[in-house]
Amino acid sequence: MNRKFVLARSPEGQLRTDHFRLVEDKVPEPARGEVLIRTRHVSVDAANRAWMQGATYREALSDGMVMAAGGIGEVVKSNADGFAPGDFAYGETGWQEYAALPVTGLTRLEPIEEMTNHLSIFGIPGLTAYFGLTQCGQPVQGETVLVSAAAGAVGLFVGQVAKALGCKVVGIAGGPQKCAMLTERFGFDAAIDYKVEEPLRKAIRAAVPGGVDIYFDNVGGDILEAALSNMAQNGRIVCCGALAAYDGVPPAHGPRGIPGLLVTRRLTMRGFIVFDFYERRAEAIERLSTWVKDGSIKVTEDRIDGFERLPEALVGLFEGGNVGKRIVSF
Amino acid sequence: MNRKFVLARSPEGQLRTDHFRLVEDKVPEPARGEVLIRTRHVSVDAANRAWMQGATYREALSDGMVMAAGGIGEVVKSNADGFAPGDFAYGETGWQEYAALPVTGLTRLEPIEEMTNHLSIFGIPGLTAYFGLTQCGQPVQGETVLVSAAAGAVGLFVGQVAKALGCKVVGIAGGPQKCAMLTERFGFDAAIDYKVEEPLRKAIRAAVPGGVDIYFDNVGGDILEAALSNMAQNGRIVCCGALAAYDGVPPAHGPRGIPGLLVTRRLTMRGFIVFDFYERRAEAIERLSTWVKDGSIKVTEDRIDGFERLPEALVGLFEGGNVGKRIVSF
Repeated sequence: MNRKFVLARSPEGQLRTDHFRLVEDKVPEPARGEVLIRTRHVSVDAANRAWMQGATYREALSDGMVMAAGGIGEVVKSNADGFAPGDFAYGETGWQEYAALPVTGLTRLEPIEEMTNHLSIFGIPGLTAYFGLTQCGQPVQGETVLVSAAAGAVGLFVGQVAKALGCKVVGIAGGPQKCAMLTERFGFDAAIDYKVEEPLRKAIRAAVPGGVDIYFDNVGGDILEAALSNMAQNGRIVCCGALAAYDGVPPAHGPRGIPGLLVTRRLTMRGFIVFDFYERRAEAIERLSTWVKDGSIKVTEDRIDGFERLPEALVGLFEGGNVGKRIVSF
Repeated sequence: MNRKFVLARSPEGQLRTDHFRLVEDKVPEPARGEVLIRTRHVSVDAANRAWMQGATYREALSDGMVMAAGGIGEVVKSNADGFAPGDFAYGETGWQEYAALPVTGLTRLEPIEEMTNHLSIFGIPGLTAYFGLTQCGQPVQGETVLVSAAAGAVGLFVGQVAKALGCKVVGIAGGPQKCAMLTERFGFDAAIDYKVEEPLRKAIRAAVPGGVDIYFDNVGGDILEAALSNMAQNGRIVCCGALAAYDGVPPAHGPRGIPGLLVTRRLTMRGFIVFDFYERRAEAIERLSTWVKDGSIKVTEDRIDGFERLPEALVGLFEGGNVGKRIVSF
């Protein structure tokens, strides 16, 4: 049998586990050009929630559909050239134990010691951090980088890549444990606990009196507004996502200071999706590998075992439960 | 005697003429390295109002100070090398008939048929349109450019430069006369009257169903928000000013859709000040001259005669009274 979670009904406000329903079905038969994948590791992402809101960079999810997600699986049956049983691949497995997928949408994965690293540092979070920071942020050695959701999947890599590039790095995270970890374990120069520091604007000013050269925004909302007022001249804001807007009703307004501060301080804000740079991923993976090997980047993952825990894993993401990339393995 | 307007008191809300006071003083004596200028033409700009709000890209104006402004004047007495009586120069004359200014802050002006063109197409409005569009907007032939305050000093040139570069151009302006003029006289492909079209978002969609590639924002606020929701993928928003925020209390919130739309549509917003590109102005002036000569750009100015009319000229700017660059001559 094939267990899968479908979207029981689209959430109006906050996501709950009962928005999903577990169903059992026959294991599908791969069509010509397809392979049958046994899913092993599913990537749990804030973006999963955004897909329920409506069309983003992909079609919206609707009721009754298998919950979408990227995942790593093992080929167990092949009906396509180039893939054989035993091969590992990354693709749009969704929340199901078995998926019949066209090979055109699959990326073959090198066998590495920790296969889950293909979902973290060598996957979307690592590439998002790398391309967002280098291409949109364009850091120069000695500049100051501020990153929000700094203990999250992307933020943790943004900070470490920025340090590897010779920048000063300040992270914003929720809670004293996360903040202590950023400075003590991951080499951040400072960390700001947004749950305690009030107003956040002043806490950023105290940490970065000379102004922020690059703000890597993973959250939007009030934190973006607080960062905006602390940007240095010619600063760059990398817009990677809007965690604050994904879960629940969209904010009633945008950040104050736009466009006024953009003009007076000559700021650039740029939004991107990692797939915009996907054809250059080999270059990025090579560079990230070097940093992992020489210890500049420490890879931490937040792994949860058990297929049935997928809903709680996603819901918990919005409560800030994770440090590093959240992955459900089964 | 030297007549001058000083700031009587900083405006809290909307600017009124009684925020200025006319005073008479002795004609100043130029110190060593200075010249005495007889002001002839004063540039009236939305930015003048912003300077009263607090520090922008320049020091804030405070009560009792001569109202600041750029202007063109004739040298009547020189105490510096390189300038002689009869020379014309652009500088920070302020609202006064005579100004003693250090020559380091002056730009010598070529004698041209209409000296006021040095304040319009060959001055800050023309250079702002040129550099903002070409450097921040990076237009490609065939793309669609939307510009707000399209009948204003900068907007009128933005639209004409964009047409000269092979773009489709849609202007947003207030009132049927202005809109008719944009399409009939200045070659805009379409014009939207923001005072009539409600909601503006839908009017933009109707005019540009394929999405806006470049939005040149002169106003901020609700118009920026409406444009934002109509941007095409990889669109660019050039932030040139925030007319809506200059006069009166700053808006309570920023435009909705930030950062969400920036991410999903991969948009770039960039703020700039024309002085960032000032060292390249010779190149810009040469190109603009060519377009003026071949008729691609029609120069329209909004000239008001009489020194004593400076306050009403500035106040009226925020009521949308002008078409093209407003200049007070005396």
